[in-house]
Amino acid sequence: MVNTKEALLSMISQPAEDSGSKVTVVGVGQVGMACAFSILSQGVSSEVVLVDVVADKLKGEMMDLQHGALFLKNAKIVADTDYAVTAGSKLCIITAGVRQKEGESRLDLVQRNTDVLKHIVPKLVQYSPDTILLVVSNPVDILTYVAWKLSGLPKNRVIGSGTNLDTSRFRFLISQKLGVAPSSVHGWIIGEHGDSSVAIWSGVNVAGVRLREINAAVGTESDPENWKDIHKQVIMSAYDVIKLKGYTSWAIGLSVASLASSILRNSNNVHAVSTYVKGLHQVEQDVFLSVPAVLGENGISLIVKQRLTPEENQSLLKSASVMAEVQEGLKF
Amino acid sequence: MVNTKEALLSMISQPAEDSGSKVTVVGVGQVGMACAFSILSQGVSSEVVLVDVVADKLKGEMMDLQHGALFLKNAKIVADTDYAVTAGSKLCIITAGVRQKEGESRLDLVQRNTDVLKHIVPKLVQYSPDTILLVVSNPVDILTYVAWKLSGLPKNRVIGSGTNLDTSRFRFLISQKLGVAPSSVHGWIIGEHGDSSVAIWSGVNVAGVRLREINAAVGTESDPENWKDIHKQVIMSAYDVIKLKGYTSWAIGLSVASLASSILRNSNNVHAVSTYVKGLHQVEQDVFLSVPAVLGENGISLIVKQRLTPEENQSLLKSASVMAEVQEGLKF
Amino acid sequence: MVNTKEALLSMISQPAEDSGSKVTVVGVGQVGMACAFSILSQGVSSEVVLVDVVADKLKGEMMDLQHGALFLKNAKIVADTDYAVTAGSKLCIITAGVRQKEGESRLDLVQRNTDVLKHIVPKLVQYSPDTILLVVSNPVDILTYVAWKLSGLPKNRVIGSGTNLDTSRFRFLISQKLGVAPSSVHGWIIGEHGDSSVAIWSGVNVAGVRLREINAAVGTESDPENWKDIHKQVIMSAYDVIKLKGYTSWAIGLSVASLASSILRNSNNVHAVSTYVKGLHQVEQDVFLSVPAVLGENGISLIVKQRLTPEENQSLLKSASVMAEVQEGLKF
Amino acid sequence: MVNTKEALLSMISQPAEDSGSKVTVVGVGQVGMACAFSILSQGVSSEVVLVDVVADKLKGEMMDLQHGALFLKNAKIVADTDYAVTAGSKLCIITAGVRQKEGESRLDLVQRNTDVLKHIVPKLVQYSPDTILLVVSNPVDILTYVAWKLSGLPKNRVIGSGTNLDTSRFRFLISQKLGVAPSSVHGWIIGEHGDSSVAIWSGVNVAGVRLREINAAVGTESDPENWKDIHKQVIMSAYDVIKLKGYTSWAIGLSVASLASSILRNSNNVHAVSTYVKGLHQVEQDVFLSVPAVLGENGISLIVKQRLTPEENQSLLKSASVMAEVQEGLKF
Repeated sequence: MVNTKEALLSMISQPAEDSGSKVTVVGVGQVGMACAFSILSQGVSSEVVLVDVVADKLKGEMMDLQHGALFLKNAKIVADTDYAVTAGSKLCIITAGVRQKEGESRLDLVQRNTDVLKHIVPKLVQYSPDTILLVVSNPVDILTYVAWKLSGLPKNRVIGSGTNLDTSRFRFLISQKLGVAPSSVHGWIIGEHGDSSVAIWSGVNVAGVRLREINAAVGTESDPENWKDIHKQVIMSAYDVIKLKGYTSWAIGLSVASLASSILRNSNNVHAVSTYVKGLHQVEQDVFLSVPAVLGENGISLIVKQRLTPEENQSLLKSASVMAEVQEGLKF
Repeated sequence: MVNTKEALLSMISQPAEDSGSKVTVVGVGQVGMACAFSILSQGVSSEVVLVDVVADKLKGEMMDLQHGALFLKNAKIVADTDYAVTAGSKLCIITAGVRQKEGESRLDLVQRNTDVLKHIVPKLVQYSPDTILLVVSNPVDILTYVAWKLSGLPKNRVIGSGTNLDTSRFRFLISQKLGVAPSSVHGWIIGEHGDSSVAIWSGVNVAGVRLREINAAVGTESDPENWKDIHKQVIMSAYDVIKLKGYTSWAIGLSVASLASSILRNSNNVHAVSTYVKGLHQVEQDVFLSVPAVLGENGISLIVKQRLTPEENQSLLKSASVMAEVQEGLKF
Repeated sequence: MVNTKEALLSMISQPAEDSGSKVTVVGVGQVGMACAFSILSQGVSSEVVLVDVVADKLKGEMMDLQHGALFLKNAKIVADTDYAVTAGSKLCIITAGVRQKEGESRLDLVQRNTDVLKHIVPKLVQYSPDTILLVVSNPVDILTYVAWKLSGLPKNRVIGSGTNLDTSRFRFLISQKLGVAPSSVHGWIIGEHGDSSVAIWSGVNVAGVRLREINAAVGTESDPENWKDIHKQVIMSAYDVIKLKGYTSWAIGLSVASLASSILRNSNNVHAVSTYVKGLHQVEQDVFLSVPAVLGENGISLIVKQRLTPEENQSLLKSASVMAEVQEGLKF
Repeated sequence: MVNTKEALLSMISQPAEDSGSKVTVVGVGQVGMACAFSILSQGVSSEVVLVDVVADKLKGEMMDLQHGALFLKNAKIVADTDYAVTAGSKLCIITAGVRQKEGESRLDLVQRNTDVLKHIVPKLVQYSPDTILLVVSNPVDILTYVAWKLSGLPKNRVIGSGTNLDTSRFRFLISQKLGVAPSSVHGWIIGEHGDSSVAIWSGVNVAGVRLREINAAVGTESDPENWKDIHKQVIMSAYDVIKLKGYTSWAIGLSVASLASSILRNSNNVHAVSTYVKGLHQVEQDVFLSVPAVLGENGISLIVKQRLTPEENQSLLKSASVMAEVQEGLKF
């Protein structure tokens, strides 16, 4: 009987299984899929593995991506409920967890999602002992701490997506006010991803010119131009979008893809990500909060020691206390 | 009172409103958003306008994309329920319409979606008289005909996304069987997007070697290797994915982005898209069906006259008859 | 007699001549070709026209690019000694001119290159009255002034590549010292592209932290860490590279492609480019010097009014005087 | 004394040296630099190492690329005359060698370039024992054989750039004649890269329609439309371009970048590359010639067994004989 493949093709060597930039995404909800799709459509990786417990949905998402492989530079997309498929991942992105509901604070989600991580993290590390873990599930700062504890990995290899997204929202909103591209507006949101995030107004600048050199009150209550309102909008962004469309997806997907790109390309870009901050800015607890950090193939190599005003530092320390308190109550 | 913007920036000229590659997407459901997001994340256009009748959802999707603008090369994203915002679009993509339900045939949707188009097409053409219309809503072949009639545009400027997606599914499935990238496996699905699509097995080839040169029965009922099964899987793809995840999105989004890229970049690539086929392959009715067509800034410039076997041609003519019959019953 | 094309393809409409992002590059020396190739290989435009007076070299470069069109998303590349081929260009990049020799100052080149521009600029504007002119030929600041005068275009549409390159060298060298990616190190070189350029040390920062907040002497003579040396290296860069390889090409090509991208994508990014600066920073002469400017489809829309130290401002004014003096002696 | 770096940045872990997609380019002539630049500007790899014996030129090219790193997604570029810098390369591209002169046949270059390879190949393999070697130097088929012998690597890991370029020239020229994008015109040039290359006219097709189905004489002497002339132009391309501009660079650079992309992204694309063909198409000698091959992280996994006409096969066997004869005379 004819074998078309053998008659057409002569085997010279076994094809390589993996591309050397294998990325696993755990959780195929709206956030996980936006991450996976952003990574594929922007060419950040040519090999994405999906894992979830809901086999049907998982298979459907895999097939839908595979049907577009022709348009994705022939990327390899696989999926399984069994973690064996993740073996050898350079980067594992954790998006699984209960989704933040309308009006719910991120902190309320924590124990439920800790329990979810207990099923995920040990298996990821088992199959990819040299991986970097990137936690996206909320509340991201505490869950990054949880993932770090569960993984046994060094702190440079366990990262939370943190305020990289808040920072991009911040830069977009300022850009709209000024008529300048977001990538040419510089400013940082650090601390907790969410309600208690800290906007570092003192450093906000365009081409090195700080807004505070023009208007010393920028970001304060006494500012007649009310720039502070932008930070409020940033904090409300997730709530607003969830209220309007039911969930957030595109921006977090792109934000995570930008982190993945810096890691896989070893680019040493600075991003605001959640990392172990004990000893920085007088934080004394074992907590993860976002600060500007240099990302590469080894995860976080350097942290930028920003100059905070006393108020900014106070906010950060308050977040740290809240985190530590919640963490104490966690069972894992 | 201080004006930070004026103190920071000196105006030299009014910034340009539009980028010269403005794309409108009508409908912000899963398909519309996958199209918009693919176009933005792959850099196909730097300016996307969203339109829908559901104001809340529309605003939520716009905000979610805008929050990622930093990662999208500063793309401009706007949205409105009023079509004035679409003025000057180079390309208008219509994804609005009632979604295909599990088990529902594409033809069942037709009158409902014709009524939807009556509200959309005239306004698009009013604000962008030189635009190209790309219809994605299903049943795509009939709705492209409807859009053409409603628009008054020449036939080269009204295009249906057609079997560009079926073709990519076909190539992916063959690629899996052979161990060769989808972009190096050549084969075409033409005709109706959906149940009666026609696989042109006679031309399927790798590096110019037709599978039928090896196994003359490829694609026929008598093939011991059962390649025909791949076409059956293609036809079932949408049904399968909808069953598994509730809808299709990623592959159609990428497929549409590939069409948008060929149009906006004036690349003259050949895609299987739905076009007016009267006079081709002995079709005698005023219908739209997919055939390989050359796409550029002027829409469709050339159509490839494939050599069909009598069976293939018969299938195509049958689809044409079904289309024509449905169209006769349409009120618009 | 058979006509394969007609038997294969059925014409539906005349294909569009132009892609809407047509870019002309005048001069196919090392710099011009690096610009053209960067624009094509990075997908900034899908249509590049080359013009030069040396017909053989011109044809050779065109053919060499065309032979790679398969790998350039099917970009259209044409070339001619006749400017008619440039008609309808969105952007015209002028790289023609006598090249800076080893050890030669940029100012020495000026009259020779002014004469060259007299043959180029009027023809470009004749065929593309709505174009943006981007001058790369050296001495770039004076030649941008010359092009502006010769063109009759408004000042927002005549731009010199200026210190966009010096700035990227500056950021690269600082990045090496810090272990942080160039795109995460912020700093600006303004003023003359070349020997009298001004480094704005006061604004150099990483994540909003100014180096001068840590070491107030950064960039001054009294700095024990000698950061100032980096600016000296920037100034010597062109001389060093010319000495080592005979000319500069790659970095200027990429720098120009980044400007072209911001213009064609209407992205509103801030770049240090040469623009008409009378009235800014107390400049009183009709001169072009680089300052941070917002670029889009309309050319320069906004200029950033940086805060200069008295020394920085003094340097800038000195450059302005030198420019004005040279310009007075120019015959055109 | 102040240390700005330490005061600014806190070290969390040692940054990773390599990006996992390290590419070495040996030889910084026009071809080598076009390869390196194409790889960087298209984002194929974020880490490129240059090696050459001419230290000055080498340093100049490295600096020129580094100065553009800001525009290359922060790619890492290093250079050295010492091969230690290449350690751990995934892919080594050999472009060193005496350049083909105007009118010189590729075969004339062979012994001189064999001697060059003796200094290069053993060192590359010593520092990167798991690398893939991609030979670009001419005559490429014989030099790929030489590199294979010198390297001790399995045949799937030693690849010649071969007729990937001839094929792209072929497709471009046909595309011009038809008004269809090169990527939608399918056709293959196999055999020797150069004068005796073989055009597989029998498989040339658009959308699966073979030109020979329309005009059976396509590619033959008796064709009234004279398609054969296109193959002649392909053969003359290198000579023509060298005559016009002195060397070829852009197209070979892009061609090599496309091979590098398929390898590093593990994409399984089919390219015409030079590989060990003994046993294929009745070749009985130990020679390398181009045939369509599937490329991935493991080099060549599969070869496509094309159907050659007797004449095509005869041409191929003649090339094989010539190769074998030359190889017999080689000293290495």
